[in-house]
Amino acid sequence: MKILKKHRAFDGEVRFCEHESQSTQTKMRFATFTPGANSLGGKKPAGILIWLSGLTCTEENFMAKAGAFRALSEANLMVICPDTSPRGLSLPHESDSWDFGRGASFYVDATTPGYRDHYRMATYVTLELPSLIDREFGLGNKISIFGHSMGGHGALVLGLTNPNVFKSISAFAPIANPVNCAWGEKAFAGYLGNDRSVWANYDASCLIERGHSHGHAILVDQGLNDEFLEKQLRPENLEAAAANTIGESKPSKLTLSIRFHEGYDHSYYFISSFIEDHIRHHAQALSK
Amino acid sequence: MKILKKHRAFDGEVRFCEHESQSTQTKMRFATFTPGANSLGGKKPAGILIWLSGLTCTEENFMAKAGAFRALSEANLMVICPDTSPRGLSLPHESDSWDFGRGASFYVDATTPGYRDHYRMATYVTLELPSLIDREFGLGNKISIFGHSMGGHGALVLGLTNPNVFKSISAFAPIANPVNCAWGEKAFAGYLGNDRSVWANYDASCLIERGHSHGHAILVDQGLNDEFLEKQLRPENLEAAAANTIGESKPSKLTLSIRFHEGYDHSYYFISSFIEDHIRHHAQALSK
Repeated sequence: MKILKKHRAFDGEVRFCEHESQSTQTKMRFATFTPGANSLGGKKPAGILIWLSGLTCTEENFMAKAGAFRALSEANLMVICPDTSPRGLSLPHESDSWDFGRGASFYVDATTPGYRDHYRMATYVTLELPSLIDREFGLGNKISIFGHSMGGHGALVLGLTNPNVFKSISAFAPIANPVNCAWGEKAFAGYLGNDRSVWANYDASCLIERGHSHGHAILVDQGLNDEFLEKQLRPENLEAAAANTIGESKPSKLTLSIRFHEGYDHSYYFISSFIEDHIRHHAQALSK
Repeated sequence: MKILKKHRAFDGEVRFCEHESQSTQTKMRFATFTPGANSLGGKKPAGILIWLSGLTCTEENFMAKAGAFRALSEANLMVICPDTSPRGLSLPHESDSWDFGRGASFYVDATTPGYRDHYRMATYVTLELPSLIDREFGLGNKISIFGHSMGGHGALVLGLTNPNVFKSISAFAPIANPVNCAWGEKAFAGYLGNDRSVWANYDASCLIERGHSHGHAILVDQGLNDEFLEKQLRPENLEAAAANTIGESKPSKLTLSIRFHEGYDHSYYFISSFIEDHIRHHAQALSK
């Protein structure tokens, strides 16, 4: 693991790192924030949050724009933000558009030619990063996951399918039913091929319908002035899927709290307004 | 005044605006944050802070990266961030380098050919913006000023020379003695010509030596791991100038609090770590 640069912030430290990933067979970058309690008093962080960013982002966006360090310091939590895809490849159509390929992995394990050798982000986030987190920071059993938009989708899907790895899940404006929106259809066709039946494995609404659940409540925030709300995000489908799990005959119960916010859009101005609530949500789960 | 875009944040609103500037004879852009107390309860902000950004920045950097909205909301203060220079011109050498011309006005009123017709940022910040602030927000007598690096220089110089316009001053990593550093020498030669005696009018350390002061304490934060500290920023010269004003025979007393911070660099990671202290500093002055 190579530290590319670091910045002191809120008595803690922001680091930008690079490592050779076994999952993607490329270098991968990620950023971390370690709260000051760790460096000052030798007090180990209470846990670590994996943040998954949205389309076109890198490992940097959350660090620069989320305004999360104050709340992370108060909760004594680390955060780690992986990049949104492998880089440095030249796969077919990988850089033709902003919503597929580079910066747009959708956090799946791809099965299509070319992509299946490198776009293995589900494995990267659920196995390789937790293993690295355990080795480097000794926090392998204190991990929660959250994200925004494409990364909110990633957090929901990877959290629901790996409830023992991730102690809690939250999302900002997630792509909540990707098999039923243009972004998801394009990405899943490109990464998973044309058999739509396998797409559901990476769709939070479908997973919940099939009985996937999580022991800790899931928190979702959604702005009502979000330009992608109707056509791409579809939180109402997630809400409906979760409502169906509540009946007594259903195999699993899921507590999903979706909060809709008047006037808020899809930007980091929205994320930064509610990030403290998400950090407290995860801090509570990780304290158990 | 044209609103180009707006974002809801912390129950308040971020706006990006454009207007025809009489000072610069160009369109000028600025961004504002209005706290939610204003929109929700009709409670007028307690004041407004003008933030001056550093080299290469625009009106957007502070809004996206400073993490200031929470503290601004608590103090019920607005902030307004002008762009760092006029845009859309084609003056000689205006876009040759990142430390002169576009994005690098140094907040002076230029006197050199071409620049003197448009680079009138001192007038823009001390007269035109306060007039606009009074007209649009009714806060013309409740203005404080702060900034970073080149903008910290601007805040100190314009605050010290207009103590009746700006109720308080603070700065992050200001270019504290520009007549004695490469950035300042290049900029002042280009905007003010080769007569160094006039440069001192735009140098905070020189102004304090000459007796300029301010009725409210000035707060300066400086990181000790700042890559520009020794060669460009020179806060020790500002400190020395202020120390000389303390003797009883001196014409004016100035309270300057420079805080040096181990490990912090020149970035917004540094700014965001201490922005709340600056907001409280100004809130106190504006409450009088």
